[in-house]
Amino acid sequence: MTRPYNFSAGPAAMPEAVLTQAAAEMLDWHGSGMGVMEMSHRGKEFGQIYAEAEADLRELLAVPSNFKLLFMQGGGLAENAIVPLNLSCGEVADFVITGSWSQKSADEAKRYCNSHEAANTQAGGFTTLPDPAGWQLSTQPAYVHICSNETINGVEYHELPDLKALGCDAPLVIDFSSHVASRPVDWSRVGLAFGGAQKNLGPAGLTLVVVRDDLLDRALPICPSAFSYKTVADNQSMFNTPPTYSMYIAGLVFKWLKRQGGIAAVEACNIAKATLLYDAIDTSALYVNRVAKTCRSRMNVPFYLLDERLNDAFLAGARARGLLQLKGHKSVGGMRASIYNAMPLAGVQALITYLRDFEAQNG
Amino acid sequence: MTRPYNFSAGPAAMPEAVLTQAAAEMLDWHGSGMGVMEMSHRGKEFGQIYAEAEADLRELLAVPSNFKLLFMQGGGLAENAIVPLNLSCGEVADFVITGSWSQKSADEAKRYCNSHEAANTQAGGFTTLPDPAGWQLSTQPAYVHICSNETINGVEYHELPDLKALGCDAPLVIDFSSHVASRPVDWSRVGLAFGGAQKNLGPAGLTLVVVRDDLLDRALPICPSAFSYKTVADNQSMFNTPPTYSMYIAGLVFKWLKRQGGIAAVEACNIAKATLLYDAIDTSALYVNRVAKTCRSRMNVPFYLLDERLNDAFLAGARARGLLQLKGHKSVGGMRASIYNAMPLAGVQALITYLRDFEAQNG
Repeated sequence: MTRPYNFSAGPAAMPEAVLTQAAAEMLDWHGSGMGVMEMSHRGKEFGQIYAEAEADLRELLAVPSNFKLLFMQGGGLAENAIVPLNLSCGEVADFVITGSWSQKSADEAKRYCNSHEAANTQAGGFTTLPDPAGWQLSTQPAYVHICSNETINGVEYHELPDLKALGCDAPLVIDFSSHVASRPVDWSRVGLAFGGAQKNLGPAGLTLVVVRDDLLDRALPICPSAFSYKTVADNQSMFNTPPTYSMYIAGLVFKWLKRQGGIAAVEACNIAKATLLYDAIDTSALYVNRVAKTCRSRMNVPFYLLDERLNDAFLAGARARGLLQLKGHKSVGGMRASIYNAMPLAGVQALITYLRDFEAQNG
Repeated sequence: MTRPYNFSAGPAAMPEAVLTQAAAEMLDWHGSGMGVMEMSHRGKEFGQIYAEAEADLRELLAVPSNFKLLFMQGGGLAENAIVPLNLSCGEVADFVITGSWSQKSADEAKRYCNSHEAANTQAGGFTTLPDPAGWQLSTQPAYVHICSNETINGVEYHELPDLKALGCDAPLVIDFSSHVASRPVDWSRVGLAFGGAQKNLGPAGLTLVVVRDDLLDRALPICPSAFSYKTVADNQSMFNTPPTYSMYIAGLVFKWLKRQGGIAAVEACNIAKATLLYDAIDTSALYVNRVAKTCRSRMNVPFYLLDERLNDAFLAGARARGLLQLKGHKSVGGMRASIYNAMPLAGVQALITYLRDFEAQNG
């Protein structure tokens, strides 16, 4: 039997093959007599799981050798504090506000530094991305923060800004929580990237940080040791007991991504899925997506029914067809289809068929 | 076939029934069409999992209604910063040093407050607990911190100190990571308790905090929002995306504990297991435990072979019998048997049989 298609924005659908393998190995990992949950993080069994996960992710994302991969805890909202604790030096950091998540990052940073707004698209309802040439950058920001995919508003940078071309030599910080591993990253433009795992990498509770070596030396004295990037890096992400089971699941996801053909192949599939879905929305008379076409997210597709009285019927009908968790975020209403790596093309096709059928019945 | 007995100090053995159920529900929780890892933390399915886990734990630990139960991230080492960020007010906090963990807590607190050492048993090799009547408490500490079970040194408070009887009205903070849910807690003596889940509660990456209501209002402005107890409490542990799968597993452990008869029954079993093991060590001519009998841990039993040249042979023989992860912590050497709730009496009996057989062959 086919499982339902789960369009949750996160925690989100996992590859079925990963769940099947995890279930089979639950009581005994590779003949060790232990489940992964039961292993010392210092033992050779978990050491192998960690080393493979780190190497696979580095290969998948083509992370250069001068970047560290850190497996941390607390999610994106914790990183909103941890980044300025590590990088701001208590000075000024610049934020480009393109939706709920970058706004939260800018707000939280105020605890630790002068949080400067370099651009803000709220007046347009967060439906566009501001041209970097127009950003009002500070003279010498400690870093410049963007959210490279806004999960709630459905806005995605399809090219990372080139700060050097703007005459700014500060590191670019990207919150790539909701599109990590869905496309390549141009690391030449990035100083630090962070993301909660619960969209494209694995279970909630695991946070990925990719940080350039030269940024490890500037944490504020008030930075908790467990969240100091240097301390975490110096201890191979085992200063504190890491979220071992979540790292194992993420490692299975990385191997699944490699079996799909790596990030280039996954990106091609993501482009195909997003193109089909946006086309279906754009050609309908009932549904609308309000984001400018040049910056629509491939991962999170918010849309509205022009007659919002039909919302409940739409959701009930979707559920009856095995199309789950399509309700939009409470802050913006409407619908949202999150179509991360683990969503198969067939799931998007099933959604499109439903969109058309529902419109035919209610249009 | 019987699984091997896993004596890891943490992440540690899980109840087999919990792992079996988790494996069976991996792809579809209760007919929802989703695995627990794939559920929105805001949805009704996970809402039910969270509510049951919270209620079951509150019942098991008999937590009074004026305490909040918080599910957080970062483990005990993160709490070493998060507690003073929330409770110290930047003033003085007192620490009773009885082993590696309380020492780490005292050291980390120096980032945020005046960390005062009220007692220290290091001179005696951390083999005793200091009489509270002799503690050198500050005049008005913001709180007094103890580690109520030292995982590495095998020292456990069998009665929590009564600060009021010492003329101190500060809240008592206990790090109960490695014996939570193994015995009742006298909440009348506690202001805040914290513990990583990976010994007795569930997977690494989940941290339990139990905090009295009146202590929620004093966080330093530099406390990250995701680690502010008030923010976490006000949002039912969902300010940031919580470690949902780990909470689900912990919830299964709570239901398993209830099936065992609750904490009183579990404690009786823990007393029986620890008594048998310490007796076997004390009556042997090859093994020694150096902790004073009045404060030996029921959870973590460190012991040494009097002839340390036999260590490798001892560990190899243990492994051959399916007795895993008995090597002591690198900082103290020797052996350690961690016998948490999930370790059955039969596992302790198997270890004792091996202790005697090995001694007979090598004594």
